[in-house]
Amino acid sequence: MSRFISPRYTDLVPYIPGEQPKDPDIIKLNANETSMPPSPRVLAVLKSERMRHLGRYTDPSSMELKTALSRRYAVRTSEVLVGNGSDEILGLIFLTFFEQARIAYPDVTYGFYRTMARSFGIDHAEIPLRADFTVDVDAYVHSDRHIVLANPNAPTGYVLPVSEIERIVAANPQRLVVIDEAYVDYGNESCVPLIHKYDNLLVVQTMSKSRNLAGAHIGYCFGAASLIKDLEGMKAAFNPFNLSDVSMAIGTASVEDEAYFEHCVKETIAAREYTKEALRQLGFYVMDSHTNFVFVTHPWLTAEAYNAQLRAHGIIARHYPDDPRVSNFLRITIGTREEMEAVIAATKEILCQLAA
Amino acid sequence: MSRFISPRYTDLVPYIPGEQPKDPDIIKLNANETSMPPSPRVLAVLKSERMRHLGRYTDPSSMELKTALSRRYAVRTSEVLVGNGSDEILGLIFLTFFEQARIAYPDVTYGFYRTMARSFGIDHAEIPLRADFTVDVDAYVHSDRHIVLANPNAPTGYVLPVSEIERIVAANPQRLVVIDEAYVDYGNESCVPLIHKYDNLLVVQTMSKSRNLAGAHIGYCFGAASLIKDLEGMKAAFNPFNLSDVSMAIGTASVEDEAYFEHCVKETIAAREYTKEALRQLGFYVMDSHTNFVFVTHPWLTAEAYNAQLRAHGIIARHYPDDPRVSNFLRITIGTREEMEAVIAATKEILCQLAA
Repeated sequence: MSRFISPRYTDLVPYIPGEQPKDPDIIKLNANETSMPPSPRVLAVLKSERMRHLGRYTDPSSMELKTALSRRYAVRTSEVLVGNGSDEILGLIFLTFFEQARIAYPDVTYGFYRTMARSFGIDHAEIPLRADFTVDVDAYVHSDRHIVLANPNAPTGYVLPVSEIERIVAANPQRLVVIDEAYVDYGNESCVPLIHKYDNLLVVQTMSKSRNLAGAHIGYCFGAASLIKDLEGMKAAFNPFNLSDVSMAIGTASVEDEAYFEHCVKETIAAREYTKEALRQLGFYVMDSHTNFVFVTHPWLTAEAYNAQLRAHGIIARHYPDDPRVSNFLRITIGTREEMEAVIAATKEILCQLAA
Repeated sequence: MSRFISPRYTDLVPYIPGEQPKDPDIIKLNANETSMPPSPRVLAVLKSERMRHLGRYTDPSSMELKTALSRRYAVRTSEVLVGNGSDEILGLIFLTFFEQARIAYPDVTYGFYRTMARSFGIDHAEIPLRADFTVDVDAYVHSDRHIVLANPNAPTGYVLPVSEIERIVAANPQRLVVIDEAYVDYGNESCVPLIHKYDNLLVVQTMSKSRNLAGAHIGYCFGAASLIKDLEGMKAAFNPFNLSDVSMAIGTASVEDEAYFEHCVKETIAAREYTKEALRQLGFYVMDSHTNFVFVTHPWLTAEAYNAQLRAHGIIARHYPDDPRVSNFLRITIGTREEMEAVIAATKEILCQLAA
């Protein structure tokens, strides 16, 4: 640490992202990415004449992408914020609304909430998931803290119905509820329509999962115009051109290709259902996933051993050794059908070897 | 403003970027962009197979671009931070080092410093430029505040020699000096080598000017490893994947094409010298520019009238009506030779009409 760091930030806790191995032969199922290419329209715009004009700043209001999103999600452009990944969107939300405030989120969820809460010195309560990893909705209904919920949750894959989210939002209009819908597209109902009914709700989404664009890093959120205006103010104070013109072009092309999006989501859901069923037949307990990953544990194969053995087979999954509640679970991202067949084949070998 | 905004940020002041008109016939010389395309290598990488893999997160340490920059600028990768534009780099610097601290910068400079200082509630002193718009170096040498200097400065175009910057840096190792070198490539010596001698210096650069990549929004800074480590910590807390893989690919391709970079800079400098000389012949006072813009005033044509008349000729420049020290100056970005010939032709017409 240098002698110049602000006293506010001497406790900065970096978020540790999933490993990014370089070896192309590795089956990478540790970061909830997809193994499919982006929409052909995305690849086309990157090859287009537009890229010759990158010498120009883009429109700092990002209206092109906001317009595409507003059509797709049936909201007004004044109800959309776009940014450099949903992490930046969350960062702006935490800075704008949660400094000097009190927040609550589950003890087992996306680790970045804890990172930011600690880094920005925010009073944070981590409400335990129930023993079965479901969200204790009443604990949130009765809390007077601002609330952050990933729905579906990660790494559990569990989802709350919109009616339960609405119960939390409606219970107390004086607190803000942030729903992180990173995984909503994998067969779930979205809370977005609720933003027209409640002005204390923000719904965050990302193009990093269902749109096969983690490497483009584009996120967005929906909320009442009053909330979005505050966030736009913070954005304009911190990084007015937070969405590059390349990101704008990529994001817009993706949103406008609904058919390809639906095709990819369908493929992933099919591969997920195959994986769930196959792992269950091998004796795994598989949480009922509503996402592009499965969260699994086994009666006699420890998660640590399973993780190490998969790695020996060239497959990388995500293990949480430092969190006792989930340290015996493994999170496996759903790749292509072929990749998941490789996981099942490897798992059979691992179990056979240990049972022999 | 919503009822949820943090009390720290109720005074948020958005930075107002230069207008981004849509009309392709307009000659846009208001935002210090370039009118040249990016390096052919940049366009090639956007068409390459790599873009089919955007489903993957990029390396959050951005090592590919850091390695290219470290070679080009003769520094270690541990002495480089990369980000989503130099605005994000500045945002991270202000958050990490200037919260609860005191800073100084010139009264006439890049407006974003003021925006951020106000937004983050930082104690800021604006040290007046001298009457001739040069920087009063001694005022900084004797100040005990952290210092932010654009060098060359904008909108004046004036540059301090590296020896004068070193005098400021060396005078007080207990304060941080941030040198914003957005325009350094247009014929100036850089302070980057000083980072190996002083651990209280950060040098910020951008690809938005001399690399024709404003629309890609890539910035970086150099400094002692201890400073970079603090900034990496803040980055990891706020937005771990702040540089997308698209930006990484674009930035690396640009840095590796030194020949094209030098060609473009040379063209811009030649067009600038042509413009300076032609405007001086028309009676303008032209500040001695070391950038890709000129800052001009005229004895009887007001900047307001000149700006309005240029616009009537389809040419957009930047006027600062709200700042009395420079409200009678116009900042004109240097475009292509053809664009600058159009400016001179329009200016002759404007002067003739008024003189008639």
